[in-house]
Amino acid sequence: MPEYHAPLRDMRFVLHEVFAAGQLWARLPALAGTVDAETADAILEEAAKVTSELLAPLNRSGDEEGAHWDNGVVSTPAGFREAYATYIEGGWVGLAGNPAYGGLGMPKMLAVQFEEMLYSANASFTLYSALTSGCCLALDAHASEELKQLYLPRLYSGEWAGTMCLTEAHAGSDLGLLRTRAEPQADGSYAISGSKIFITGGEQDLTANIVHLVLGRLPDAPAGSKGISLFLVPKFLVGSDGALGTRNSLSCGSLEHKMGIKASATCVMNFDDATGYLIGEPHKGLAAMFTMMNYERLSIGIQGIGCAEASYQNAVAYTRERLQGRAPGGAQAPQKSADPLIVHPDVRRMLLTMKALTEGGRAFSTYVAQQLDLAKHAEDADERRRAEALVALLTPIAKAFFTDTGLESCIHGQQVFGGHGYIREWGQEQLVRDVRIAQIYEGTNGIQALDLLGRKVVANDGAALRLFAEEIRAFVDTPAAPRPFASELLTALERLESISAWLLEQAGKDPALVSAVAVEYLNLFGYVAYAYMWAHMAAVAQAGRASDEAFYGAKLSTAQFYFSKLLPRIHSLDAVIRAGSAPLLELADDQF
Amino acid sequence: MPEYHAPLRDMRFVLHEVFAAGQLWARLPALAGTVDAETADAILEEAAKVTSELLAPLNRSGDEEGAHWDNGVVSTPAGFREAYATYIEGGWVGLAGNPAYGGLGMPKMLAVQFEEMLYSANASFTLYSALTSGCCLALDAHASEELKQLYLPRLYSGEWAGTMCLTEAHAGSDLGLLRTRAEPQADGSYAISGSKIFITGGEQDLTANIVHLVLGRLPDAPAGSKGISLFLVPKFLVGSDGALGTRNSLSCGSLEHKMGIKASATCVMNFDDATGYLIGEPHKGLAAMFTMMNYERLSIGIQGIGCAEASYQNAVAYTRERLQGRAPGGAQAPQKSADPLIVHPDVRRMLLTMKALTEGGRAFSTYVAQQLDLAKHAEDADERRRAEALVALLTPIAKAFFTDTGLESCIHGQQVFGGHGYIREWGQEQLVRDVRIAQIYEGTNGIQALDLLGRKVVANDGAALRLFAEEIRAFVDTPAAPRPFASELLTALERLESISAWLLEQAGKDPALVSAVAVEYLNLFGYVAYAYMWAHMAAVAQAGRASDEAFYGAKLSTAQFYFSKLLPRIHSLDAVIRAGSAPLLELADDQF
Repeated sequence: MPEYHAPLRDMRFVLHEVFAAGQLWARLPALAGTVDAETADAILEEAAKVTSELLAPLNRSGDEEGAHWDNGVVSTPAGFREAYATYIEGGWVGLAGNPAYGGLGMPKMLAVQFEEMLYSANASFTLYSALTSGCCLALDAHASEELKQLYLPRLYSGEWAGTMCLTEAHAGSDLGLLRTRAEPQADGSYAISGSKIFITGGEQDLTANIVHLVLGRLPDAPAGSKGISLFLVPKFLVGSDGALGTRNSLSCGSLEHKMGIKASATCVMNFDDATGYLIGEPHKGLAAMFTMMNYERLSIGIQGIGCAEASYQNAVAYTRERLQGRAPGGAQAPQKSADPLIVHPDVRRMLLTMKALTEGGRAFSTYVAQQLDLAKHAEDADERRRAEALVALLTPIAKAFFTDTGLESCIHGQQVFGGHGYIREWGQEQLVRDVRIAQIYEGTNGIQALDLLGRKVVANDGAALRLFAEEIRAFVDTPAAPRPFASELLTALERLESISAWLLEQAGKDPALVSAVAVEYLNLFGYVAYAYMWAHMAAVAQAGRASDEAFYGAKLSTAQFYFSKLLPRIHSLDAVIRAGSAPLLELADDQF
Repeated sequence: MPEYHAPLRDMRFVLHEVFAAGQLWARLPALAGTVDAETADAILEEAAKVTSELLAPLNRSGDEEGAHWDNGVVSTPAGFREAYATYIEGGWVGLAGNPAYGGLGMPKMLAVQFEEMLYSANASFTLYSALTSGCCLALDAHASEELKQLYLPRLYSGEWAGTMCLTEAHAGSDLGLLRTRAEPQADGSYAISGSKIFITGGEQDLTANIVHLVLGRLPDAPAGSKGISLFLVPKFLVGSDGALGTRNSLSCGSLEHKMGIKASATCVMNFDDATGYLIGEPHKGLAAMFTMMNYERLSIGIQGIGCAEASYQNAVAYTRERLQGRAPGGAQAPQKSADPLIVHPDVRRMLLTMKALTEGGRAFSTYVAQQLDLAKHAEDADERRRAEALVALLTPIAKAFFTDTGLESCIHGQQVFGGHGYIREWGQEQLVRDVRIAQIYEGTNGIQALDLLGRKVVANDGAALRLFAEEIRAFVDTPAAPRPFASELLTALERLESISAWLLEQAGKDPALVSAVAVEYLNLFGYVAYAYMWAHMAAVAQAGRASDEAFYGAKLSTAQFYFSKLLPRIHSLDAVIRAGSAPLLELADDQF
């Protein structure tokens, strides 16, 4: 049976050695009194226990049993209620929440490590609280003081949970089409009516109340995405003292039957003149919801890394034990009937691909989190703005690239098991099914790519990209930049800049171009970003090698693998981008 | 709900226009009286009905219900028994079987079209008879006349079914480790004892008898793969008149719980002094089994194409109907609330990738089948030998490349559905789960790649590759070779030849090299082979364009897409191969 062990050594490496988190926190007043390197390590140790001992053991059984629906009542699989109660006792839901309302105020750099552990251990379980965290962010940023006082503490404590209600049956990627109505009431509240689908945790038996963030239209709303407002719609109405009142007129119509994340209740939610409260300004709901969506996008990206890490751990354990065939150069375990699978170069190719992508992703998620912390807490306005620009640029890459490479990794992790990888008992096929949704929800990866190339690169004429490129150039120019990786990184960066310049030039002439090549562009950008991470990690590893050959030597070898075996994927991506949009547009719709 | 319509127009195009099957059959005496173009078309029409009307409707329900095990008795999902009875009435199991024993003697070129339809309609159902066909091939090639007379007619009729029993719990890719014992008995039979796993259709309720082909060891067998013999072990012993006798001492211990192909019973089979009959020579069982395995490998490859075609059809239908967003150049359906998904370049990218890979695969499977027909039926011994060499070279590519690109296609076909692609009701996620096994069973795709590069290229010093390259060069030199595709094909071929030459030179010096780069080599080879197919198809389409612009124009546009958007993948593969084995070997096993 698969076991999960949080990769604490690597998380500490990324946090402290690569990004010097402790020093950063010390210079940010909002964090200086809250956390230091030692506190962070203690939290991670505890998080490792909770995820491996409490949540991971429920992952397989949760998948087998799934969530249940019975006449509007949803129950989670056996063990989830008890685990959730224990989990929220630890205060984990509010880890990075606003201390003014009961959150612990921990930095995002720390929170992403914890999120990775959660997704590794049990993706379905994690979704119940991941949505709560995003909901809190949106409320914290846009809700009235009264609503914040009432709701945030109970959400941070995990006593209540949050959801995001966007999609309708006919409105998915195109939210401008949504029809849910909000009628103003005499008391200042709104009567919400409409039907939402794909609502994660829309109903469940874990929390006393559920706080739905719902997108809908006011009576005077303009058509399209500029006429959408955001409402808080609780399952139970809440008195001014926080006590639960009458049940609101909303219900779960059914659960979806899905490929994976089966223990996560994916609900059809029907609102029938349900009482709701406006969050933020009328018609500006989509922008307010994006506060939550950007958070969720990074979180869902981390689902890709988390599932890949779990798959990798299982794959390494299996390939060390399973005896099959002989190493190409001759037996390496001559006393045994066969060599372990891990001696075979093709098996190592799969393991190293997983390792390089997962560790590269871990570093990159921490890097993006660092920018989020700076955007929120830096004292200097320019530093905040710079960090915000990087967050906007890199979030779609994190979401899509983490999950695309997450699926690739989980497929490799299944493949090394041979036929056993296809059997449910071993857990590897569940990880493939569970990770697959991450490429789809929170904006499909195609939508992420459009966001990146269209809005984050072309629309600002490459300004944000230049910020990122400048940082990489500065790194390459430092004496510590590791050879030969630094020069390979620079070559890859120049390729990204060159293709970006070409796209900026062509996009004005060809309206189809951005949509035609956005996915390949995002992937190319992702490989360059990981090259930066791997060069950065290699620099630290070269400096530390003498002190711990096993760990730092592995880092350097994995960096070598990344640069020689994965980064070359950009050659093809570059050629495909340069082939432009024409090859996609020749066929008439009825010629498909 | 998904519907399946056999792509008859494209199948006729490939068979008749690209490969001139009728002319080929007319010159091969064994086929000349059996089949012509008209007969073939009539068979395909009938096959289209059977697969779309009888088998496709059971695909979803079979997945939901799965196969059942109850105390050794296995039952297939509702409707399978009735459908199987109707199916075998049509004589389909023996379609390409030896006419001397009741087969219909149809060419493989025709059979592969039918197989593709079967896998598109219902992969689980198909496996029950696909194994029978392979079993027949092995018996026809290696069994005694007496066994052939007794077993083949009842297998070709579908009255009985066949299995292949290779894998044991500790022996998967490494069959040399297997332990099943065969003790000679006084009557010339053998007592077979051992336990086999992953036996497709090892037990079921569709047929009156089940004929197991079992690999085992004689008492005097040498260790390893040179001590393996092949035995026929029937579920019920068979009298000399073909009547069923006593139940043999073998049983199904359990069914595996799998990611997909859930309606296919994957059995643990226990043999306990079961009566078996030697097939072929002692200790030469693995070679005999390869007759079946090579057949199954092409068949399983076609599973990749079949699932991809089904996914493509669903995806095209959905993206034509689903309204979401607007085309980048402005509304294309301004009277509607949004444009259909199919106008979005990124959606077209996914659909065209599926279309180009599936149609390329269909052509290539027919090409390999043509070589199989020539190897079997050509009058000239040189022509037979040449075809045999091409079959040996191209079978591992067909198996692995069809299924790798089949998974990629099914992932795209799921992705264009957005969240609905993750929901079971739409059928797209089942295709992902069902196609995934095809990369694993019948020799993992990593094993196929080792077979290709190690045995089929390096071991014969590139001789078979030169045959294939000569054929492509001859095509490029014909006046009908389509511009600009022919020159791009030649460039790609030269790249394959160059990297092959480098590998031939390096492999002797570096024993790890073949295993280290085999997968990328197989993929590079696959893209070049598909480029040959697409150039070939483009030549026919250019000639025919005036007569049917819709069909031939689509072919040419898809060829354009293939050459500009998919073939460039070889750039990265080439670079990764040239990076050699060193980056895979640096890490010690305990550094993973």
